[in-house]
Amino acid sequence: MAWKAIGIFDSGVGGLTVLKEIVRALPQEDTIYLGDTARVPYGTKSPETVSRYARQIASFLLSRDIKLLVVACNTASAVALDSLKELLPIPVVGVIEPGARRAAAVTETGKVGVIGTEGTIRSSAYAKAIKRMNPEIEVITRACPLFVPLAEEGWVDNEVVRLTARLYLRGLREEGVDTLVLGCTHYPLLKGVISEVMGEGVTLVDSAEETARTVAEILLGSGMLRPAAEQGNHHYFVTDVPAGFIKVGNRFLGGQLGDVYQVSLEDDAAGEG
Amino acid sequence: MAWKAIGIFDSGVGGLTVLKEIVRALPQEDTIYLGDTARVPYGTKSPETVSRYARQIASFLLSRDIKLLVVACNTASAVALDSLKELLPIPVVGVIEPGARRAAAVTETGKVGVIGTEGTIRSSAYAKAIKRMNPEIEVITRACPLFVPLAEEGWVDNEVVRLTARLYLRGLREEGVDTLVLGCTHYPLLKGVISEVMGEGVTLVDSAEETARTVAEILLGSGMLRPAAEQGNHHYFVTDVPAGFIKVGNRFLGGQLGDVYQVSLEDDAAGEG
Repeated sequence: MAWKAIGIFDSGVGGLTVLKEIVRALPQEDTIYLGDTARVPYGTKSPETVSRYARQIASFLLSRDIKLLVVACNTASAVALDSLKELLPIPVVGVIEPGARRAAAVTETGKVGVIGTEGTIRSSAYAKAIKRMNPEIEVITRACPLFVPLAEEGWVDNEVVRLTARLYLRGLREEGVDTLVLGCTHYPLLKGVISEVMGEGVTLVDSAEETARTVAEILLGSGMLRPAAEQGNHHYFVTDVPAGFIKVGNRFLGGQLGDVYQVSLEDDAAGEG
Repeated sequence: MAWKAIGIFDSGVGGLTVLKEIVRALPQEDTIYLGDTARVPYGTKSPETVSRYARQIASFLLSRDIKLLVVACNTASAVALDSLKELLPIPVVGVIEPGARRAAAVTETGKVGVIGTEGTIRSSAYAKAIKRMNPEIEVITRACPLFVPLAEEGWVDNEVVRLTARLYLRGLREEGVDTLVLGCTHYPLLKGVISEVMGEGVTLVDSAEETARTVAEILLGSGMLRPAAEQGNHHYFVTDVPAGFIKVGNRFLGGQLGDVYQVSLEDDAAGEG
């Protein structure tokens, strides 16, 4: 019997942090990853545009016969998850619900901070998800648009990123949150600085692990989990030329990235050089 | 007789600095501007992808019957200008040649610095253009990827941008350039800080004015210049929802931005919500 793969997508390389946790939890599963590097970033774009891109990607991954789709991008999870769930005949897992569940479980003071892109924060998706789990929790949010370009520039531990983190996070510190959700798959790269600025008493939550756990539960519950004795294969697709993705992706995965292929998601692909 | 418009495009709002100078120089001309806000930025993407986007935009603007095309984006000028010139039946003007000409005219020491996006700097387009004008000029370049997100965040005069500028520009200062080309249409927004960091003896060159002059010369030389008594109309198109563009665009144009319409450049436009 042929086992289908898990489909995973993000606007770029960030979702590889989620892929990594899924592979760690379920090494027997095949995965197909798509990074929409020709149109990255999503965080500054409108919900309509991000939803359209997400539908194009879902349709590409579906055509490769996946059994479950992971939206490993906070912005796309925030604005497109519901419509993808309605549209697709397979289970769809976002990163917001798992991150929110973890934050609600971890907080002791009932004050949770959430940082993310403008699109994610504007959607209030985290605040709504956390309040669905526990309406008493107070959620304080802050968009941090410069964190993604800083992480991509490789400035994860210098004075510029430290100063930026201090400016962005001051309000959250003053509010006294004891838990901070890293609501963007790039932010774990800045964990050191964010943790330093927030101080020792604050727990940082990144959604990757919790998302992998959710994927495992769904596959197990629906009889779609591949036997643990098998060994998964991993395929990578991007929409821009692969060079940049390969470089940063290998940093994310510790040199374990396989072959990366370029695809076009637009109907005018035939016209491409 | 109906006079055709001047077409202008950029990956986003930055090209409005060029539009502004064209309107100032040629108030009688109609303009059609397209900002590719659904796929911004171009500076981090591959030449192939940027060229494809530029071709799609040129074809959209051509279908609206323009008489001349201004590529008001340094990255697209650097990687796609030659192919657009070959492809299109109308004159095509980029921003690199005019900026290079100005820099070559201004420098006294023969040491010129150029800053821009990764795509622009990697292409060496400015260095080549300046050396075509005067092979003796030494050109020192530096990519400054964080300048665009800083300008879009509105951080144009705080400690973060000052520190970033110092890190990026240190090498250019040490080399002793007397002229610095702002090789990205966003950078004029950071002129204050850049000028402060570079010091008094350094002349900053931005391509907008010089590009407008080139456009005027071509239209005059080819008999396509509209009589000066007329009053031009200005139309704006974007590929993402217009809200963000309108906000920042009005800042660029001092509140003079007209109606902005959303268009889709992909063939799947019919499927859009």
